[in-house]
Amino acid sequence: MKYSKVDDRIVAELQEIVGAKYVLTDREKLEPYSHDAVTGDKHVCYPEAAVLPATTAEVAAVVRLANREVIPVVPRGAGTGYACAAVAYEGGIVLSTERMNGILEIDDANMVMVVEPGVRTSEVQEAAAAKGYLYAGEPSSGDSSFIGGNVATNAGGIKAVKYGTTRHQVLGLELVTPEGEVVMLGGKLRKETTGYSLIQLAIGAEGTLGVATKVILKLLPKPAKVMDLLAIFPSAAAAIAIVPKIMHAGITPLCVEFMDNKGIRCCEEFLGEKLPHSEDGYYIIVSVEGESDEALENQCVTIDELCEANGSLEVLVADPAKIWKARKSFGEANRARSLIFSAEDIVVPIAGIPDTVAYLGELGEKYGVTIHCVAHAADGNVHADILKEELPLAAWEDKLPKLQEELYTFVYGLGGKLSGEHGIGRKRLELMEKFADPVELKMMRAVKKALDPRGIMNPGKIFRM
Amino acid sequence: MKYSKVDDRIVAELQEIVGAKYVLTDREKLEPYSHDAVTGDKHVCYPEAAVLPATTAEVAAVVRLANREVIPVVPRGAGTGYACAAVAYEGGIVLSTERMNGILEIDDANMVMVVEPGVRTSEVQEAAAAKGYLYAGEPSSGDSSFIGGNVATNAGGIKAVKYGTTRHQVLGLELVTPEGEVVMLGGKLRKETTGYSLIQLAIGAEGTLGVATKVILKLLPKPAKVMDLLAIFPSAAAAIAIVPKIMHAGITPLCVEFMDNKGIRCCEEFLGEKLPHSEDGYYIIVSVEGESDEALENQCVTIDELCEANGSLEVLVADPAKIWKARKSFGEANRARSLIFSAEDIVVPIAGIPDTVAYLGELGEKYGVTIHCVAHAADGNVHADILKEELPLAAWEDKLPKLQEELYTFVYGLGGKLSGEHGIGRKRLELMEKFADPVELKMMRAVKKALDPRGIMNPGKIFRM
Repeated sequence: MKYSKVDDRIVAELQEIVGAKYVLTDREKLEPYSHDAVTGDKHVCYPEAAVLPATTAEVAAVVRLANREVIPVVPRGAGTGYACAAVAYEGGIVLSTERMNGILEIDDANMVMVVEPGVRTSEVQEAAAAKGYLYAGEPSSGDSSFIGGNVATNAGGIKAVKYGTTRHQVLGLELVTPEGEVVMLGGKLRKETTGYSLIQLAIGAEGTLGVATKVILKLLPKPAKVMDLLAIFPSAAAAIAIVPKIMHAGITPLCVEFMDNKGIRCCEEFLGEKLPHSEDGYYIIVSVEGESDEALENQCVTIDELCEANGSLEVLVADPAKIWKARKSFGEANRARSLIFSAEDIVVPIAGIPDTVAYLGELGEKYGVTIHCVAHAADGNVHADILKEELPLAAWEDKLPKLQEELYTFVYGLGGKLSGEHGIGRKRLELMEKFADPVELKMMRAVKKALDPRGIMNPGKIFRM
Repeated sequence: MKYSKVDDRIVAELQEIVGAKYVLTDREKLEPYSHDAVTGDKHVCYPEAAVLPATTAEVAAVVRLANREVIPVVPRGAGTGYACAAVAYEGGIVLSTERMNGILEIDDANMVMVVEPGVRTSEVQEAAAAKGYLYAGEPSSGDSSFIGGNVATNAGGIKAVKYGTTRHQVLGLELVTPEGEVVMLGGKLRKETTGYSLIQLAIGAEGTLGVATKVILKLLPKPAKVMDLLAIFPSAAAAIAIVPKIMHAGITPLCVEFMDNKGIRCCEEFLGEKLPHSEDGYYIIVSVEGESDEALENQCVTIDELCEANGSLEVLVADPAKIWKARKSFGEANRARSLIFSAEDIVVPIAGIPDTVAYLGELGEKYGVTIHCVAHAADGNVHADILKEELPLAAWEDKLPKLQEELYTFVYGLGGKLSGEHGIGRKRLELMEKFADPVELKMMRAVKKALDPRGIMNPGKIFRM
């Protein structure tokens, strides 16, 4: 695809639309828009301009201009993504939603919240809680990520086992299409089946099918009580095996997190605090919700008994602050050990987690790299951080693709896929084109071509046309 | 679109694919395939042939033939639909999934069930329950509907408030595309974000984007206990107002059903049993789930107090058999009173239900027709049955479209839509083209054209090309 450049004429027109100070073209001002959370120079790419619209009408005008002139538009939230989906590899315009950061409405009668895409996820959670509701989306990056980015990647997080991913929280989505038209998909509606679910198609499309300019979110009753248990097992297999047993017992936990022993040690070292059984333990962190203390205790007793019966080393009522600090420090801890690392986002059928973790161990030894794992165990979503550490860059760039090819051959053999919650973006594009079903890829390309005929909306992401 | 006829050559080729006895062309044998659950001659249309494949390969071969020859293919489940989506208005082939009725696997370790599309919804529920699981989809037609039809319409039902609609139960979908290719969308995966969610696009597409040949369903922990309450209010407004209050109290009910007074009386008459406060009552039926009797009682006490505080006439611990018999007889009761009736499937923001019910009353008086309402109250889904009764057919066919135009002008004014769970099919096509956002319609048509270039897959449903 041949794209036009953002020349002075285009800049002037962009300034007309959003105001001169909201069109950035100086290199130093563009730096924050040149990468996301993925480290390494090869994942840095400067746009020709960053544009910061304040309204849906401004977004639509920018997109119409870009569509008319055939200039790439890369929608961007907080830039906390792990797939380079918000990086402008084809140049063109980065469209940042940072100024569209208003909570527009909390509608009690309908139990929905209407927000702009640039609102931080944590602000949504807090605004809901302040009114006595739960907003159930909770990606680990929630303190910094924008809700628009959550929608673009169908962000998951620790509560997905009980409440689903972002696509299950979104009832309505105002979208600026790749041709610059504005459409409201869904609404304040708890359900509908009125034609194709374009809203579900747009969610998780990583900004390749349009720019979300308004999001209507479902609010839920706020659970009365939560309790966290830390169950420690002598092996990954024993730890994961407990997950379906808990569900079979009639309990739907709020979250079930797995930490591999190597991951535990890495966090322990990073935090400088002793973690229980760090020498030989594999963790399952289970949170349960209930209306009453009794309800909670009943669930915890059941889980405790199940864990003991399945060979747990110990089951502790976890100090939430401490245990979640450890769990949430996983990414940071790996980064501290190796600035350059590859965060894999494997998803497999839940019973496939132990084999996947074991296979990652084998691959680590084979390729001489450290791999640390945690998992959203009840979702089958394994986060494996592959660390470069002292490896020379050339060796790293030679080994990583080979390791990934072996890894995903194994993962797809289990019925798994490339990404559970981070998305494909640019980072996983080659793997996507290699491992995704060719018919599915053909269908995705046909849909993209149909909805973005000039190919301007976040081009070169997920797949190439 | 100009379609080819199913001539002797085509019949012979179809017989080659599925076997001679599974290609029906005699008019009397085609009768069962000439309509769905919608009554009235105008909704009857015979296909040129009905084909009953037994395998995915046979389905794919039939569709490839139809695509090559440009012959319409109308996928059909149990024919229990309320939108004429499975009726062959363009002639061609009705592809019935009735022989693909196997439960292929119940996978305990991954808590999923793999079924063919022709399995009855109730069989899925029973097979899950027999293994100690819950399959959470429960359309009212579940005793007769096929799971494939549930997928095609994104069927809802009484449990959608807590567990979502069919799209929330489906993890994987094997689809035969309009070009006759076979693709597995999703899998035994609790979540994924690996490219566009084509599975969510296909769910609810009413068979216009392909034929589902295998469905992977999520299984959930079986709730320990359920209790039903019947709260009776003096007005629709008072009844509906209780719904957000229950949710605010931190309770997520299993279901919340509303019955309008006229609907109650109609069911009472049909069943020949006195229903409480039928002279002046509006019902809210609330079911709650809990792990223990205490948990249930706590919820029921809270709901009871809320209802009393909000002017309920009476709150009863309902005899489930009796109250659900009344609720579920609604359609039958209306049919008994008027064989020809129009089952509207309005969905509005939940706070809009009372105004919608009141407006339906006004329209009934204005047009001189009886309208009975029930609602999935916590979903905003109002089922309004408009009865022809003694009205001459010509007058009925004159009045109904005018009434519907006024009704949906009002509904869309509230931010509502045409269908909450029945779908658009052929029955609501004109209303869809009139009331749906033109940009959204354009996008739907573009997607359809992209995935079904020859326009053979259930043509003339949802919208016209």
